[in-house]
Amino acid sequence: MIGRLTPGAHNAITDVAGVRVGHTTLISGEGPLRPGQGPVRTGVTVVLPHGDNLFRQKVRAAVHTINGFGKAFGFEEVRELGVIESPIALTNTLNVGLVADALAQYAIRHSPEIGIHTSSVNVVVGECNDGYLNDLQGRHVRAEHVWSAIEAASSGPVAEGAVGAGAGTTCFGWKGGIGTASRVLPARAGGFTVGALVQSNFGRPQQLVINGVPVGRHLRPPGPPQSPPDPGSIVIVLATDAPLTARQLRRLCVRAGAGLARTGSHYDHGSGDFVIAFSTEGRIAHKPASLTATQTVLADEPKAMDWLFPAVVESVEEAILNSLCRAETLVGRDGHTRYGLPVDEVAAFMRKRR
Amino acid sequence: MIGRLTPGAHNAITDVAGVRVGHTTLISGEGPLRPGQGPVRTGVTVVLPHGDNLFRQKVRAAVHTINGFGKAFGFEEVRELGVIESPIALTNTLNVGLVADALAQYAIRHSPEIGIHTSSVNVVVGECNDGYLNDLQGRHVRAEHVWSAIEAASSGPVAEGAVGAGAGTTCFGWKGGIGTASRVLPARAGGFTVGALVQSNFGRPQQLVINGVPVGRHLRPPGPPQSPPDPGSIVIVLATDAPLTARQLRRLCVRAGAGLARTGSHYDHGSGDFVIAFSTEGRIAHKPASLTATQTVLADEPKAMDWLFPAVVESVEEAILNSLCRAETLVGRDGHTRYGLPVDEVAAFMRKRR
Amino acid sequence: MIGRLTPGAHNAITDVAGVRVGHTTLISGEGPLRPGQGPVRTGVTVVLPHGDNLFRQKVRAAVHTINGFGKAFGFEEVRELGVIESPIALTNTLNVGLVADALAQYAIRHSPEIGIHTSSVNVVVGECNDGYLNDLQGRHVRAEHVWSAIEAASSGPVAEGAVGAGAGTTCFGWKGGIGTASRVLPARAGGFTVGALVQSNFGRPQQLVINGVPVGRHLRPPGPPQSPPDPGSIVIVLATDAPLTARQLRRLCVRAGAGLARTGSHYDHGSGDFVIAFSTEGRIAHKPASLTATQTVLADEPKAMDWLFPAVVESVEEAILNSLCRAETLVGRDGHTRYGLPVDEVAAFMRKRR
Amino acid sequence: MIGRLTPGAHNAITDVAGVRVGHTTLISGEGPLRPGQGPVRTGVTVVLPHGDNLFRQKVRAAVHTINGFGKAFGFEEVRELGVIESPIALTNTLNVGLVADALAQYAIRHSPEIGIHTSSVNVVVGECNDGYLNDLQGRHVRAEHVWSAIEAASSGPVAEGAVGAGAGTTCFGWKGGIGTASRVLPARAGGFTVGALVQSNFGRPQQLVINGVPVGRHLRPPGPPQSPPDPGSIVIVLATDAPLTARQLRRLCVRAGAGLARTGSHYDHGSGDFVIAFSTEGRIAHKPASLTATQTVLADEPKAMDWLFPAVVESVEEAILNSLCRAETLVGRDGHTRYGLPVDEVAAFMRKRR
Repeated sequence: MIGRLTPGAHNAITDVAGVRVGHTTLISGEGPLRPGQGPVRTGVTVVLPHGDNLFRQKVRAAVHTINGFGKAFGFEEVRELGVIESPIALTNTLNVGLVADALAQYAIRHSPEIGIHTSSVNVVVGECNDGYLNDLQGRHVRAEHVWSAIEAASSGPVAEGAVGAGAGTTCFGWKGGIGTASRVLPARAGGFTVGALVQSNFGRPQQLVINGVPVGRHLRPPGPPQSPPDPGSIVIVLATDAPLTARQLRRLCVRAGAGLARTGSHYDHGSGDFVIAFSTEGRIAHKPASLTATQTVLADEPKAMDWLFPAVVESVEEAILNSLCRAETLVGRDGHTRYGLPVDEVAAFMRKRR
Repeated sequence: MIGRLTPGAHNAITDVAGVRVGHTTLISGEGPLRPGQGPVRTGVTVVLPHGDNLFRQKVRAAVHTINGFGKAFGFEEVRELGVIESPIALTNTLNVGLVADALAQYAIRHSPEIGIHTSSVNVVVGECNDGYLNDLQGRHVRAEHVWSAIEAASSGPVAEGAVGAGAGTTCFGWKGGIGTASRVLPARAGGFTVGALVQSNFGRPQQLVINGVPVGRHLRPPGPPQSPPDPGSIVIVLATDAPLTARQLRRLCVRAGAGLARTGSHYDHGSGDFVIAFSTEGRIAHKPASLTATQTVLADEPKAMDWLFPAVVESVEEAILNSLCRAETLVGRDGHTRYGLPVDEVAAFMRKRR
Repeated sequence: MIGRLTPGAHNAITDVAGVRVGHTTLISGEGPLRPGQGPVRTGVTVVLPHGDNLFRQKVRAAVHTINGFGKAFGFEEVRELGVIESPIALTNTLNVGLVADALAQYAIRHSPEIGIHTSSVNVVVGECNDGYLNDLQGRHVRAEHVWSAIEAASSGPVAEGAVGAGAGTTCFGWKGGIGTASRVLPARAGGFTVGALVQSNFGRPQQLVINGVPVGRHLRPPGPPQSPPDPGSIVIVLATDAPLTARQLRRLCVRAGAGLARTGSHYDHGSGDFVIAFSTEGRIAHKPASLTATQTVLADEPKAMDWLFPAVVESVEEAILNSLCRAETLVGRDGHTRYGLPVDEVAAFMRKRR
Repeated sequence: MIGRLTPGAHNAITDVAGVRVGHTTLISGEGPLRPGQGPVRTGVTVVLPHGDNLFRQKVRAAVHTINGFGKAFGFEEVRELGVIESPIALTNTLNVGLVADALAQYAIRHSPEIGIHTSSVNVVVGECNDGYLNDLQGRHVRAEHVWSAIEAASSGPVAEGAVGAGAGTTCFGWKGGIGTASRVLPARAGGFTVGALVQSNFGRPQQLVINGVPVGRHLRPPGPPQSPPDPGSIVIVLATDAPLTARQLRRLCVRAGAGLARTGSHYDHGSGDFVIAFSTEGRIAHKPASLTATQTVLADEPKAMDWLFPAVVESVEEAILNSLCRAETLVGRDGHTRYGLPVDEVAAFMRKRR
């Protein structure tokens, strides 16, 4: 367990009440890469801030770019308006366009006024490059896969490892994937919950640090070094029920970078490291009833912020480690293999060092 | 003619040597809106910084968000790396995903190493909401339309008005569309060329200002006031052959906002106002031959910058006005009509005021 | 009168209830420049968001940099925390340090707990370079001048032209200075007031545009062209009683750039163009009583924003013109002369063009 | 020793050829705080990118704000123009104004054309709040102290700990101060040097992590917990001889945040965490000889960047730890005591854990 704060019931982003997560995992074919056909090792993961119509009941949100070598979708409007109005989707790099299109279709289906009687919809998509295992050029995530992930999204425990958008990713040279964690603040700090979910796809083997121990200097994946065509990326989604403004949520996003650094990342040149944060409190109506509204807002005070910030740091660090620990060995295109982190071996090594 | 500087040969973005522009215009159907089917009043416009492989020979670039109510694609990576590596496409709001996907496919076709032996590709797409005339939900721009616009792209004169991505747009309540203009600096300021191309879709009738004259206070489109579902947007593309760094190109982008303001815009709440700028000088190889390279860079000096900045302001102001003056009346979905600006009437009004 | 909205009672930033403005004007000596001694043509202007203790009762605020060739003080913390906690001071470029120090001393006097029992104070200072008329190196604004401007600050009419921080500035080659203006929204848009105050020191004679008429092409200051050592700057302060968050206030700041552009500015290379905005509504206590607070916030809606934005644009454009029209001819160091804009001549010229 | 790269000859920022560091340390008086009089535990530290006239020969530079709860001076212009043109000074929070003024005076003395025949000068100052030990309100750093630090600045070994701007600072509840470190890249990565210098004043005792070991959970400063009035801050200065543009230098700045995170920081709410970076290569003349210049620029390539980034991370982490290890126990105002980190005890604890 990372850090000093207490996890929520599921140690997952879904510990923030109302948040739902869904995956569609696409694993099929094997053997040599036939660009456009397979093998397929990819998918989509969606995070829903609540179970109602997100276009009509938006949530306050922020985004932050740690290293912008990546193709995030929808960030400009989140920065301007401070809200998210659609499910957040994670997928692979070359699939961002198709997944964004699928989210737009989904929004139209549930809010048919979009683009006819009211404005259009801003969808948010993050991505990692899973091209070491997957036929990236094939862009195998289709609209139906996005919709079924949304339909399947649920609260409660979250599947981790090589699932959804994490099916084909690589982290520190090991099999990466989806990971999640959460922290609950003590009552005197408001009792708020912070949750993180990551799609991990970054880092070189020698960089890996687990709870402060430089495991990567001693433990390397079997076989010869295998470089991905692109050195990485991570997308981090943060949720909280603390009543934060967009400005404050951006402050949380910045702390996700600290959690990432603790796992050994240097925010490598080719790693698109992005953070998306939202608060489930204080929904914003698409058509507000009046010109002004009353909002509850957390004070910019150490008593509040200096609990939320470590909650973010610990959740992100642990979510990344969970993505590693839950992922099992996977063989992809051209026999490319990413090994699951040998959890027992790591545990033994850690014990020796403690 | 706006301002005091001299336009290039075509008064177009293509006056910057090597720059190419192509359109695919989609106009079909009439009568009541059948969401997903038509009528269709939309399209795509592409700007190519040069005619070679853009992925392998990138150009220095910058982006800037004046008002982020919009869905621009690819901005994060341009900010981080300061380059553009694909054609720039303009289209409608809900088509950004599909057009981005088409650009990725195009890049893969010409650089099959993408995502297999090297990193993925960052494509850049801007958009406006043409839903007042067009079946926005239909997302009618398909990959073939993007590719044919790229294939058709040429230097020389540029078609303006209700073409390409401007087919269905509205500007100050009149028919808007694509407009372009350019300015050439005197030899003592380096003799550089600046070109602008806009997709105009913003403003209310009463706001229109032409060369300082508040035309919009006196001249309104016929018929009852007709509000679009979304109040607007403009995407501005700037090109120059001045050897500028990404930082300097961002400075140019900021001045595009001054040109926009001179036409009467207040950067309205719902208007996604974005700027993309690139320099055709000093290409950046995808695989550089060595760790360091020698670049020619313009000095941050009034002698250079204080010529480039008004060249941007004048080009943008004039490109917007050209988009209005070249667009003819168009009837779209549900009989919605956008009238072409009555150029003779405007000219008479302007003369009276001068 | 610029634009279509209605000014407040004094057409001044003080039309926003509670806002106070004070000046200390320093004009002494004549003849050749003796660096460090004189002649002196400078001063300080302060804007107080309210008349109470600003450190203990902060106001929500934002800052925005149009062109960062300047030495603004205190911007980082306003960006992070979204509040202003001291009077805002305007002065000349080389005096920023001393004026910031004087503001800190002022805050300590009124809140002696600063730096002992609580955190330190963030002061905000903007500046222009008045070195064409003034002995800039002399840094003649002393703490007492700052304090007396604060003591003298009042609501009601605001002195404009060559006063306070505008004593030595130059605008479009004419004598510039302090200018202010305001706009009141109609009741259906909330009835809010927006006020602007500027320290104008930018532009070349040929650029000047008044209400759309390119006056500068025809009317030039007498005598040979006189270039300042630095081509300019403008600091714009915006006040409103609309209940805006820091994010929304930043949106207002961006629109100040549109007002500036309408006077003919290209945001010249050497012009430090900065905007500071605050809301008098919803004060933030230094020591909040509880972890969360209830705030009234304006909706991000066209019905509200698309009135506030033109109110900013018109106020800024008019405040700049007021700074020109109210400034009288001033002779400074080395006989350098800035002529007051010949208002009657301009009016006659404008009439001919209307 | 932190990390895997090799330090330079002095393991100091001065390992970057030409860089100089100077301190003025002010320690006087003891006993109860008499605001404005003492006791004094403060100072100033300056970093000079080279030994020539910095105004006339600027260096490429960038700044980055990790958490903007602080009063940095000069950042706007560095962001706009990408250069630094004066010594960089570090001091305490309330002294920023006076130190900025002293730097301006220094620049004027060496470039008397400033503000008379050419533009004014942009100085850069960072700060921490040393009010727990020091009479912060007294603003005891005077112009002479700044000038003597500049005069004393030298290459070679750098004094660390409770010196200069670090005289009164606190880090993780222990005595903090100035620390420095450097890393040299292998020849195949260009052989460049990266150096960091920090003024450390952040963190709570329980957060301290040394080389991955959570030392702070076990080792606390003697006596009852002692909270500073302000929970912290750190200013980080980075130097390199790699030929980087301002955009690339900003990328280095972002990585400094990763180094900071590894020492246990969560970028606390009240901690002003700022980074300033410059390259000693490719000086920019104040008056360039021609409109364009030829620059050597490092490629944005993993082969270069993914060496520079860990060099930054390791240098910053180690510079912070050096600031702790070199600082000795100091008693300040009101008997407030900050203990020097017991290095032997820490070493024993670390050995037990390895």
